[in-house]
Amino acid sequence: MTPRITPRTPSGFLELLPEEQLVFQRMLRTIQETYELYGFAPIETPAIEYAEVLLAKGGGETEKEMYRFQKGDNDLALHFDLTVPAARYTAEHLADLTLPFRRYQLQKVWRAEKPQKGRQREFYQCDIDIIGSRSILDDAEIPSVIYTVFQKLGFQDFVIRMNNRKLMNGFFAHLGCEDQSVEMMRLIDKLEKRDHQELKQEMQDLGVSVEAVEHLFDLVMLQGSWTERLSYLDSLGIENGLYQEGVLELRQVTEAMIALGVPETHFEIDLSITRGLDYYTGTVYETRLTHYPHFGSVCSGGRYDNLVGQYTEESLPGVGISIGLTRLFSQLLEEKIISIGAQTPARVLVARFSDQDLPQALDIARLLRESSIATEVYATAEKFGKQLKYAHKKGFPFVVIVGASEAEDGQVMLKDMQSGEQQILDIKELLKVIS
Amino acid sequence: MTPRITPRTPSGFLELLPEEQLVFQRMLRTIQETYELYGFAPIETPAIEYAEVLLAKGGGETEKEMYRFQKGDNDLALHFDLTVPAARYTAEHLADLTLPFRRYQLQKVWRAEKPQKGRQREFYQCDIDIIGSRSILDDAEIPSVIYTVFQKLGFQDFVIRMNNRKLMNGFFAHLGCEDQSVEMMRLIDKLEKRDHQELKQEMQDLGVSVEAVEHLFDLVMLQGSWTERLSYLDSLGIENGLYQEGVLELRQVTEAMIALGVPETHFEIDLSITRGLDYYTGTVYETRLTHYPHFGSVCSGGRYDNLVGQYTEESLPGVGISIGLTRLFSQLLEEKIISIGAQTPARVLVARFSDQDLPQALDIARLLRESSIATEVYATAEKFGKQLKYAHKKGFPFVVIVGASEAEDGQVMLKDMQSGEQQILDIKELLKVIS
Repeated sequence: MTPRITPRTPSGFLELLPEEQLVFQRMLRTIQETYELYGFAPIETPAIEYAEVLLAKGGGETEKEMYRFQKGDNDLALHFDLTVPAARYTAEHLADLTLPFRRYQLQKVWRAEKPQKGRQREFYQCDIDIIGSRSILDDAEIPSVIYTVFQKLGFQDFVIRMNNRKLMNGFFAHLGCEDQSVEMMRLIDKLEKRDHQELKQEMQDLGVSVEAVEHLFDLVMLQGSWTERLSYLDSLGIENGLYQEGVLELRQVTEAMIALGVPETHFEIDLSITRGLDYYTGTVYETRLTHYPHFGSVCSGGRYDNLVGQYTEESLPGVGISIGLTRLFSQLLEEKIISIGAQTPARVLVARFSDQDLPQALDIARLLRESSIATEVYATAEKFGKQLKYAHKKGFPFVVIVGASEAEDGQVMLKDMQSGEQQILDIKELLKVIS
Repeated sequence: MTPRITPRTPSGFLELLPEEQLVFQRMLRTIQETYELYGFAPIETPAIEYAEVLLAKGGGETEKEMYRFQKGDNDLALHFDLTVPAARYTAEHLADLTLPFRRYQLQKVWRAEKPQKGRQREFYQCDIDIIGSRSILDDAEIPSVIYTVFQKLGFQDFVIRMNNRKLMNGFFAHLGCEDQSVEMMRLIDKLEKRDHQELKQEMQDLGVSVEAVEHLFDLVMLQGSWTERLSYLDSLGIENGLYQEGVLELRQVTEAMIALGVPETHFEIDLSITRGLDYYTGTVYETRLTHYPHFGSVCSGGRYDNLVGQYTEESLPGVGISIGLTRLFSQLLEEKIISIGAQTPARVLVARFSDQDLPQALDIARLLRESSIATEVYATAEKFGKQLKYAHKKGFPFVVIVGASEAEDGQVMLKDMQSGEQQILDIKELLKVIS
């Protein structure tokens, strides 16, 4: 006998109870079904890749957070996102893919981050990308998928916020501060959390003039409806080509989004959205839950000029977005925003009074399952109260009781666990009531 | 610019094209839905665990095949099966679980095996277990789930073969060779592949008498219907209690399976099934595809006395089974047994003649999606032939054409890509035809 080992998981790894996992899985499936509804096809990449392949873009912070290990002669690591593997996949299988390639990918990724509230070391990312197309229509498809996903997940109040990197870079050029654009973007990203006077001072410290900073603040603090905001952007009369292209794209994306069914209440042109990642070059997105601004962006992405540059001479532009489901779920769970229900996916527990009733119990279970009604048979003919207690604890909506004295041949008793109501039914009636 | 890295994956890792992944995912979902139909609840455990937790049962071969690595002070590893994590999970969360605990788990596991045909280093296991119950009914539930799974996966000809370890151990005791039972089982496991005379000789070399070996061969080579086989087992008049218990269990399992709807054509009592794993103590299962015996067992499992012994003082018996889906899928793929279809989950491509038709195209896409019809809008108003070619290549069953000269206001043209037929329809008719 080996000595006993304490059953425990490393910190930073979320593990759910069955009743929580059932809710998580319903959310995951809703995301998957919605992605497919919009014509995205699934891919799945190995969790383990060559470290050099994952780091092809250059390591930085990422490298430190990778789970990396040697196996034989191979320097391997767990993927830390799905964008790099998708790029590798696309480059590797390009000859077999039809462009534009609409892929979705729902997988776990791993990052050895310092564990903290709302941060896990293992988490699901739910990504979509349209790869190999420059059509601005795609920039509108992405947020309309996201709108539908969050609707179907049951969220009423959320806003997809959009900006355009061309617009911003054109504006920086117009202000004459294109050399400071990266630092300026980083400061803009802090608008919600920091004092504006301080931010303005820091911008000036970068060598940007007071006037330019004021102009920039007018832009990023812009209010009004999306038509008003676009009119304002036009009215500035900025001659910069990149800026004008960016404004036009924002208009086209917005109009197509509306045609695709996204209501005006659920998106916003927000010039303060910058997104950290360097590779975005056009439209960028963030999504906020209106009543939970402290969750941060629950879904972000944007358009990039080239996904596969580190692997091939080909150049593939595209646009994509990602939902960090594990993080979102753990935040919802922590704040008790989602209701956790039954411990079982089954709707019916078949109980019985004696072992003599077993054949009938099994027969009824078979019929229920053949009618696609998820069913469990209580394993033994234990005291009836114990069977009911089990049904209650696991959260079955119905108990079918075989062998009740009130029932005639071929009849059973159906107990509605919510109302407590009981009725005697034959099989046909039973299937109809439960279906 | 960093230098280009060749996009490639380590050997032994299966990566599918979208059209293959779509089929794989349908199979995975069928398994999941069937598991839920029988009242199994999902759990998911972290891919990364403490190495000592995964090795609590003792290492052996497993230890060499683990992907193990150090991170900070932690000795970690990727799980190599789902049974050990399920045991750890059950022991850790026991206070929050309701027994019997019916869990399913569909996850990837990793083993650094020597890559060979049909063996992957990363593969899905699809497990169910009923934990915390000694009811023999559970031993019948497990194969009836498996029967339904394989039916729903589209397999017509397969046989679930069952044996019972008590019966075998009782028989060995009856023969007086209980001390050699482990080696004898290992030899029986080779019956299909090796010469019987040689095997008999090796059994005798273990010190088992010629008569005992002959008796054993009569048992393991037993033919006939399940009733005949059970009658034969009874007719031997063996007084050993373990043997008798085993025969009784086989009878009870078989009768309950039939009541649960498993036809006699799809199971078999097969006394030559032994299963390698030490921890099985009662019923054991294997499943063969009749026309592909060289696939080996595609689904195996059995009953065990105690799942959680290495983690806690509690003792939890149970019964479970596992489908190795990645392996099965790669075998089916290799032998071209499954047909691979479209590259897209969408049923409709919306094409258009000019950018003027974009609003109508987007409107139709919205209506189709609202009717749960998966739809893609072609990104640009390119030459119509190019749009059709794309539809053909990706395998859309339907193309909806907006702006065709034959169509009046509010009408579109529907092209059936299979038959080539085209018809002019209004939106209502369109939704009806495609639904």
